[in-house]
Amino acid sequence: MEEALRLIEERIRPVDRLETVSLPDALGRVLGEDVIAGFDVPVRDRSAMDGYAVVASDTVRASSSRPVRLRLAGRVPIGQLPSFAIQKGECASLSTGCFIPEGADAVVMHENTEEDAGTVLVYRPSYVGENISSKGSDIRKGSIALHAGDLITPAKIGVLASLGKAIVRVFERPSVAVIPTGPELVKVGSSMEEAKIYDINSHTLSAVISENGGTPKLSDPIMDEREDIIKAIEDNIHNDLIVVAGGSSVGERDLMYDALSSMGQVLFHGVQIKPGKPTVCAYVRGKVLLGMPGHPTSCLSNAYLFLMPIVRRMARLPPRRLTTVRAKLSRRVVSTLGRKVFMTVRVSEGLAEPAFKESSAITSMADANGYIVIPENTDTLEKGDEVEVFLFN
Amino acid sequence: MEEALRLIEERIRPVDRLETVSLPDALGRVLGEDVIAGFDVPVRDRSAMDGYAVVASDTVRASSSRPVRLRLAGRVPIGQLPSFAIQKGECASLSTGCFIPEGADAVVMHENTEEDAGTVLVYRPSYVGENISSKGSDIRKGSIALHAGDLITPAKIGVLASLGKAIVRVFERPSVAVIPTGPELVKVGSSMEEAKIYDINSHTLSAVISENGGTPKLSDPIMDEREDIIKAIEDNIHNDLIVVAGGSSVGERDLMYDALSSMGQVLFHGVQIKPGKPTVCAYVRGKVLLGMPGHPTSCLSNAYLFLMPIVRRMARLPPRRLTTVRAKLSRRVVSTLGRKVFMTVRVSEGLAEPAFKESSAITSMADANGYIVIPENTDTLEKGDEVEVFLFN
Repeated sequence: MEEALRLIEERIRPVDRLETVSLPDALGRVLGEDVIAGFDVPVRDRSAMDGYAVVASDTVRASSSRPVRLRLAGRVPIGQLPSFAIQKGECASLSTGCFIPEGADAVVMHENTEEDAGTVLVYRPSYVGENISSKGSDIRKGSIALHAGDLITPAKIGVLASLGKAIVRVFERPSVAVIPTGPELVKVGSSMEEAKIYDINSHTLSAVISENGGTPKLSDPIMDEREDIIKAIEDNIHNDLIVVAGGSSVGERDLMYDALSSMGQVLFHGVQIKPGKPTVCAYVRGKVLLGMPGHPTSCLSNAYLFLMPIVRRMARLPPRRLTTVRAKLSRRVVSTLGRKVFMTVRVSEGLAEPAFKESSAITSMADANGYIVIPENTDTLEKGDEVEVFLFN
Repeated sequence: MEEALRLIEERIRPVDRLETVSLPDALGRVLGEDVIAGFDVPVRDRSAMDGYAVVASDTVRASSSRPVRLRLAGRVPIGQLPSFAIQKGECASLSTGCFIPEGADAVVMHENTEEDAGTVLVYRPSYVGENISSKGSDIRKGSIALHAGDLITPAKIGVLASLGKAIVRVFERPSVAVIPTGPELVKVGSSMEEAKIYDINSHTLSAVISENGGTPKLSDPIMDEREDIIKAIEDNIHNDLIVVAGGSSVGERDLMYDALSSMGQVLFHGVQIKPGKPTVCAYVRGKVLLGMPGHPTSCLSNAYLFLMPIVRRMARLPPRRLTTVRAKLSRRVVSTLGRKVFMTVRVSEGLAEPAFKESSAITSMADANGYIVIPENTDTLEKGDEVEVFLFN
């Protein structure tokens, strides 16, 4: 599995196309270019407190028993430039966020003052710069406020807002073609026909792609004939990544191998994991093609193992960390020697109940809230054994 | 803080309105009603392997040295109903996913057989039901396949697809009004005016709301006059939750308190945390109103502490678990006795570098990738102290 991932990762490239989105739509996207601050934030010195702007040197001898008395030169309104300056011996009333009038170099908090008939008593000394958010202290004009490649979090939305950016250049999402194959498949939304089943895999694959920063491009189900597969891949080769979701047949796997090997270089065919052994991967005209196993649980499990890290890498998103919890197995489980086994479980109250029915059952995944990993060299785990559970959410 | 959260949680109700969305759009939403399976999945017995459908009792004496010979009655094509039944002494070739012909009750894997001129040699005994995914074993007709309230994950998308559901009934997202106040605020996208600042808080709040399953309804900035605030709240009281994002003034907080207390019941005013002490909360005509502090970092920090759990609860999403890592402080930090302090840090390579500049600086959050919590009774942490860091992503 590690070798398979390495073979893929050597060949994929993060998408480098850019697009422009509105500020709210930039959330969760990846910044496409450095954001240079066009002005200082704050644009001038602002008060960080409600209180009085003073000349700090006037207050050096102030104490609770011997306050310093200053003349109140005026009040600074919020959202307007101060219309006056202050001199030594004077102060100006202001509230948090007001710009500091010229002449002042500190703000005394309201709690340490008392207003008295056009004067203000100051009960504590202040130092130069105290309670002032100085010009450019948050973001300096000309500096790189955010870097290309930054994931845009709520806080970074705040940085963009502070610089007045209503639109943002971000990296495009990788487009990922999803091609379901198999003559037994019926498109969801169509009426069911005898001996057919609804196409599950293209929907679970699309969901994993969407959740990890990609844009799924879903095709209708095709036949599992070599020519149909080749044609569908040709039609979708313009996408950044192509995923072929097998039908349920293993015979078809070989067909997929035949089709892929005739188009380009097969990177691997078969992985020593369970479920999901028959995964195949090829490199065709600079694009990675993944052929996923047909059983719904094998397909989705392998989507988490292979497709998720690939799509995230192409979308420039950081690797996803699954939360883990420790739990005790509710019953004995038997594994498969020589293959790393991913077994879905349902954890509650410290107990991990195996949820795996069979690879063909989608409920093996849907009824689980996590999975455990059983190493290649372990064939059984006993009831009560402590296991580490990787939680899906 | 715990008391404040409790006061809110007693009063909020999860949204119970439903809406219909397409299957792909259902990802990450919360299912609004039970999904009852309209048919069995699989709809008939299917083969779980490539091989031969047999009558199990025919094979009980088969071994690698003494194979049993069966007549090959035909081949079952994938995606079609078998056109023939088998009798004792016969078998049918099939691949994974094919429906089992009548008369057969087990499938022998291809690996344990050999085809020979219209007959098949079977080298291993099989048991009734072996390698058969039986009708309804994944999802039984009439059973509740998914429950109202289920979070729709990729695996649950798979369950919906298997039942042919192209549209899904989900709970509506809570609509959350965001009202920025302050005469100094300029709407992002407008040109800057002297002595103004861009409105940051409504954008960071909207981002937190979006990330946690809510729909932000953003107003343009209003004046911080009592009447303006009351009118804006009246205009938005039809939403599920109302958040007023203060300007930067603390004086204005009292104004907010005045406005809220005149409209309904103030639940709390002031929380013993830093940053974000001046948060105020009221209950007006069955709706919770949150007044957030004006400093961008205080506002966003409190959005994570209060708004995120409220919105998730209203959206019926599970609580968000932040991943934690342990790290050593890169330098001494001084806290505030009597208040629980949330201090943003930047963690890398096991070292936590304090990122907090001041509450008014959005970069206090944007340059951080997590935060540490310093208890009320701790006033300093030393360089090298081990801390637990809650990671934002």
